[in-house]
Amino acid sequence: MRLDYAFWPDVEDYLKKDDRILIPTGSVEQHGPAVATGIDYIIAEAVAERAAERLGVYVAPPLCYGMSLHHAAFPGTASLKPSAYLHLLTDLFGFFVREGFKRVVAVNGHGGNVPTLKAAAAEVAYEHDGTHILIQNWYDPPEVAQRIEEAFGAKEGSHVTPAEVSILMYLRPELVGDVTRVKPTEPGLIKWQAGRRDIRDYYPQGAVGSDPSMASAELGKELLGLAVDGVAKAAADL
Amino acid sequence: MRLDYAFWPDVEDYLKKDDRILIPTGSVEQHGPAVATGIDYIIAEAVAERAAERLGVYVAPPLCYGMSLHHAAFPGTASLKPSAYLHLLTDLFGFFVREGFKRVVAVNGHGGNVPTLKAAAAEVAYEHDGTHILIQNWYDPPEVAQRIEEAFGAKEGSHVTPAEVSILMYLRPELVGDVTRVKPTEPGLIKWQAGRRDIRDYYPQGAVGSDPSMASAELGKELLGLAVDGVAKAAADL
Amino acid sequence: MRLDYAFWPDVEDYLKKDDRILIPTGSVEQHGPAVATGIDYIIAEAVAERAAERLGVYVAPPLCYGMSLHHAAFPGTASLKPSAYLHLLTDLFGFFVREGFKRVVAVNGHGGNVPTLKAAAAEVAYEHDGTHILIQNWYDPPEVAQRIEEAFGAKEGSHVTPAEVSILMYLRPELVGDVTRVKPTEPGLIKWQAGRRDIRDYYPQGAVGSDPSMASAELGKELLGLAVDGVAKAAADL
Amino acid sequence: MRLDYAFWPDVEDYLKKDDRILIPTGSVEQHGPAVATGIDYIIAEAVAERAAERLGVYVAPPLCYGMSLHHAAFPGTASLKPSAYLHLLTDLFGFFVREGFKRVVAVNGHGGNVPTLKAAAAEVAYEHDGTHILIQNWYDPPEVAQRIEEAFGAKEGSHVTPAEVSILMYLRPELVGDVTRVKPTEPGLIKWQAGRRDIRDYYPQGAVGSDPSMASAELGKELLGLAVDGVAKAAADL
Amino acid sequence: MRLDYAFWPDVEDYLKKDDRILIPTGSVEQHGPAVATGIDYIIAEAVAERAAERLGVYVAPPLCYGMSLHHAAFPGTASLKPSAYLHLLTDLFGFFVREGFKRVVAVNGHGGNVPTLKAAAAEVAYEHDGTHILIQNWYDPPEVAQRIEEAFGAKEGSHVTPAEVSILMYLRPELVGDVTRVKPTEPGLIKWQAGRRDIRDYYPQGAVGSDPSMASAELGKELLGLAVDGVAKAAADL
Amino acid sequence: MRLDYAFWPDVEDYLKKDDRILIPTGSVEQHGPAVATGIDYIIAEAVAERAAERLGVYVAPPLCYGMSLHHAAFPGTASLKPSAYLHLLTDLFGFFVREGFKRVVAVNGHGGNVPTLKAAAAEVAYEHDGTHILIQNWYDPPEVAQRIEEAFGAKEGSHVTPAEVSILMYLRPELVGDVTRVKPTEPGLIKWQAGRRDIRDYYPQGAVGSDPSMASAELGKELLGLAVDGVAKAAADL
Repeated sequence: MRLDYAFWPDVEDYLKKDDRILIPTGSVEQHGPAVATGIDYIIAEAVAERAAERLGVYVAPPLCYGMSLHHAAFPGTASLKPSAYLHLLTDLFGFFVREGFKRVVAVNGHGGNVPTLKAAAAEVAYEHDGTHILIQNWYDPPEVAQRIEEAFGAKEGSHVTPAEVSILMYLRPELVGDVTRVKPTEPGLIKWQAGRRDIRDYYPQGAVGSDPSMASAELGKELLGLAVDGVAKAAADL
Repeated sequence: MRLDYAFWPDVEDYLKKDDRILIPTGSVEQHGPAVATGIDYIIAEAVAERAAERLGVYVAPPLCYGMSLHHAAFPGTASLKPSAYLHLLTDLFGFFVREGFKRVVAVNGHGGNVPTLKAAAAEVAYEHDGTHILIQNWYDPPEVAQRIEEAFGAKEGSHVTPAEVSILMYLRPELVGDVTRVKPTEPGLIKWQAGRRDIRDYYPQGAVGSDPSMASAELGKELLGLAVDGVAKAAADL
Repeated sequence: MRLDYAFWPDVEDYLKKDDRILIPTGSVEQHGPAVATGIDYIIAEAVAERAAERLGVYVAPPLCYGMSLHHAAFPGTASLKPSAYLHLLTDLFGFFVREGFKRVVAVNGHGGNVPTLKAAAAEVAYEHDGTHILIQNWYDPPEVAQRIEEAFGAKEGSHVTPAEVSILMYLRPELVGDVTRVKPTEPGLIKWQAGRRDIRDYYPQGAVGSDPSMASAELGKELLGLAVDGVAKAAADL
Repeated sequence: MRLDYAFWPDVEDYLKKDDRILIPTGSVEQHGPAVATGIDYIIAEAVAERAAERLGVYVAPPLCYGMSLHHAAFPGTASLKPSAYLHLLTDLFGFFVREGFKRVVAVNGHGGNVPTLKAAAAEVAYEHDGTHILIQNWYDPPEVAQRIEEAFGAKEGSHVTPAEVSILMYLRPELVGDVTRVKPTEPGLIKWQAGRRDIRDYYPQGAVGSDPSMASAELGKELLGLAVDGVAKAAADL
Repeated sequence: MRLDYAFWPDVEDYLKKDDRILIPTGSVEQHGPAVATGIDYIIAEAVAERAAERLGVYVAPPLCYGMSLHHAAFPGTASLKPSAYLHLLTDLFGFFVREGFKRVVAVNGHGGNVPTLKAAAAEVAYEHDGTHILIQNWYDPPEVAQRIEEAFGAKEGSHVTPAEVSILMYLRPELVGDVTRVKPTEPGLIKWQAGRRDIRDYYPQGAVGSDPSMASAELGKELLGLAVDGVAKAAADL
Repeated sequence: MRLDYAFWPDVEDYLKKDDRILIPTGSVEQHGPAVATGIDYIIAEAVAERAAERLGVYVAPPLCYGMSLHHAAFPGTASLKPSAYLHLLTDLFGFFVREGFKRVVAVNGHGGNVPTLKAAAAEVAYEHDGTHILIQNWYDPPEVAQRIEEAFGAKEGSHVTPAEVSILMYLRPELVGDVTRVKPTEPGLIKWQAGRRDIRDYYPQGAVGSDPSMASAELGKELLGLAVDGVAKAAADL
């Protein structure tokens, strides 16, 4: 059910009976010294594909780049500014809506994207009345959040979290290095909007408030399953 | 400590020893049949003024208009689109930062503003390294959130909440009508980004998931005090 | 008749019989060493409120910030760039027009805003045919201009003028300091578009071509009355 | 002294000793049933060329299109929206300033351009400190204004004025038809920002408050001379 | 058939029977030490005027400035950035289309404009379905390209080409200096997008891969005729 | 050598010795009734990955969406408008350049992207002097173009070409259906900028001037190899 793997007459048929589309959104940003920079979009894409398959709806190819300006001091980060990201999102969501996909679900894997995603959704929903746009982080469904809390508690942190690392270990083990050498860090040192130097100054390795060494592929498999359940349910209820 | 009540030589002196400024942000949007549309900026301004006074820092005049597109179906709402609001915020925050106010606190009274405020803060913090921008909702400090939970629990809801109505009753009783005729509503009926018809269809009076009839001026006084404490503490720690 | 003090059903009723709204526009910018930076929006708001009351039309909360880049060298100024201000104005005017307020009067208190206000009005009037947008400076009605000429002649100047200071003395005496220590200045020294250093270089105190020491609260009361008459008349004729 | 007729090494030499450039700005818009739509830029270009020649400074090719949205109901008008015109002007003025022309004079022939020209000048002057940008209408120097008042008084009006028609008669007689068939019109019928239908409804021929039949080539020659004197003087004083 | 020389009632009549307009687009940019900077728009305008005359369609006044950032290191260049040029073009083309000129031909004389022209055409064609926009370089019709190949072969190069210089020699001999002192240059030294220093570093005189000394007015006359034929044919087929 | 598979310290090391990055750009657009909509970015990504591997440089994750407005009438197309695409590209290229990747190669697989890509490259190269940005279509290196000409001649056409279909057959055979049922079409029916209805009206199946039935996986393998050679060479010479 990948839109990019479809032939156009199939999409024409689909739009006669459904109007939903899932779009994975992620980031290319540092995730510490032992985790691939693309983790956020890779997980979002995996969750969205599986949820789409279950529902029989299309999933579009991912928006790999997102809003990661606060990680700019770490090489390997590739970020859009919010003003450009907002333009991209309102333009693309608007195109989908005008051309028949009136219910759009952004399956998101990166917290830094959320403000701009929500801003874009509000603008498109106003300009195209009757549209439903859902910004759905894979880690927000209650069952997912609860399992993460149970497994990692406060060690989950907010960046390079053991939950996301677990899923990547399950999906693409070759993209995770030796996370036991990543030192656990304290959360909450930065209260304001982090600028480019902040995270590198406070968290020199790049993990924020998390202990990625707790990650395991087994837990990743379980969390991925729960995320797919949660996202599929949300898209079904849209 | 209002910037707009100051003479410029006083501001010049201030910038030699401090670089903080508080900016109230709110909205002009329907708040049900018995509460003034300006409530969000009025509370934000009141909290910001008191916190500024306590800290001896300047408070700028409010940005009264915010992101309220989802309330557009109710007359009396006056909203900016996120793209315009983002432009306004990055421009104004950028001006403050360039001209010496390197630490900016948006004291916010409207949830719909948060995504765009955060997006703007990220952009300005990247473009002007070393800047600290804090998006501080008056209802987010732990003591405030806890007292609200205690007083209203799930009846707090998300729009026309008894907490905000209480504060307005205390601050400007003439701007609150007979809230006992506002019927309590259920939360969570709309899961997606609400468009202009959504709220009016699901919540015809305009309150969302809340019971504003629980509001009281006495509670408002207490909540305002807690909010000022919390915001002042956050700005002191910036 | 403040829109921000209204309950939404009242606005719904109003729009069945009228479609006018007044919006005060001003600035936050240096006004010399003894006058508050917010004077322009404070006067615009006062004039707009009184004119609205007389006509029975709504007045929206003020756009406090305007185009004051030429005063940026003086701390206390907080300016938007014209490109951002134009975006804000076309967006907000457009919202009002789309949502039923088809006749919009910007009651303006700051000369630096006029170009962008006019540009915005032209754009919105083209995009929403049948709309009437009026940019009305409070000092432009003939009776006002004449009384100012009579009272101050060439000493009125163009910034920190005795006319505006008079009105502020009447409205908010605590926002005016000892204006007798402001030295009268010569007009017309800067012929080009003033940049940030120009005014401070040519007019170190900040007043431009004016003698604010001629101001009096009594004259302020009279001028305010004439301004309200003039603006109310213009809005009635719209 | 046309920039577009120069070879680049000459411009390189020029910039070692001068940094001024004149840019004619006009419009393509209806000017009634007997006057060419391009009149505004044609006059601006003629004035700018002559003034540049006298001063030995460069004149750039004209920006023929301007802000004429209010004339859109008349075919033959070709207008930019203020937002696009502002973008064009800040971009082009900014290029000139960055590349060495630090003093820019817009020699303007169209009133509808003035707001956006001033807005652009303010933005560029802020972003490039030390720059002088002058918005100079050819009809504003005192000697010109006085001669127009003397010759036409209130019959000058504000669109398709006998002054501009006179100059075009002198410069390009073939671009003026039988103006005696244009009926004089009353000024001031439209007080708000005119939308696309307004002028055509109130002024069906297209002239606004003027009596173009008073125009003569002889007066045009005189007015052109005075305009060149005035613009050259302003550019010399910049 | 100049739109800027027409009276509006004639344009109104025209639009009842035709909906085409030609717009010359060029540049103001260095063309080596002996050719005028305005050559590109001057040729585009000449071709467009003659083609319009032949077809009996309107030609609008030229957009003299284009995208010449890569020539910025040479004084005399005056360029728009692509983002501003795109805004200008979508705005102006959109205006023409909305106001009745549903078939627009940009008669272009500058290669650097082509990307932005095509981008603008795509955007306007999408937003106004049924519109035909043609980006027509004067040197692209097969007969023109063939004659250039025949006359100059590889010596044509890509900037300050003998073909364009020939046409300018024929049209405006006073705008061409002693091109025999321009040394022939090698093509293809710069493979990437040229920045401001690139061309000046690789091609210090400013000609790129061409031998302008091969130009002649006689050839120019012939090439101009072929260009007019080709453009007129393209506009006839639109 | 995928940037999104790297750990940040590796990128930091890389930037000490190299500053190149390859970015695949493609589209999601109809490619006739038997070819996947994502073909353009899939090929671009495959070519870029192999070229990057050979050179030892990083390849960023693809920009899957591009400029496909002219295919909007066919469901399955997902396009950005040029204005949004330009904003995205200047923003992302600018980020790469500012953060150390001073030589950027867009490995492009979609003709409709080229204008906006070139426009973006020009803007970024001007704003960040010394940057080299190369827009490299995989089908443009001489050896590739020659082999395509040899294999398909005029049957290559311009959309759903046998060359691209061949490569997809080799790379992802499951994404190509029965191309023998796609009827060969004539080239050149649309001379202007195609709008949303044009291609569907003139080319109801979606292929433009091509005969995709000539495609073969074997030829695809050969063409892919040539494309990788050509792109790697171009990036090596940058």
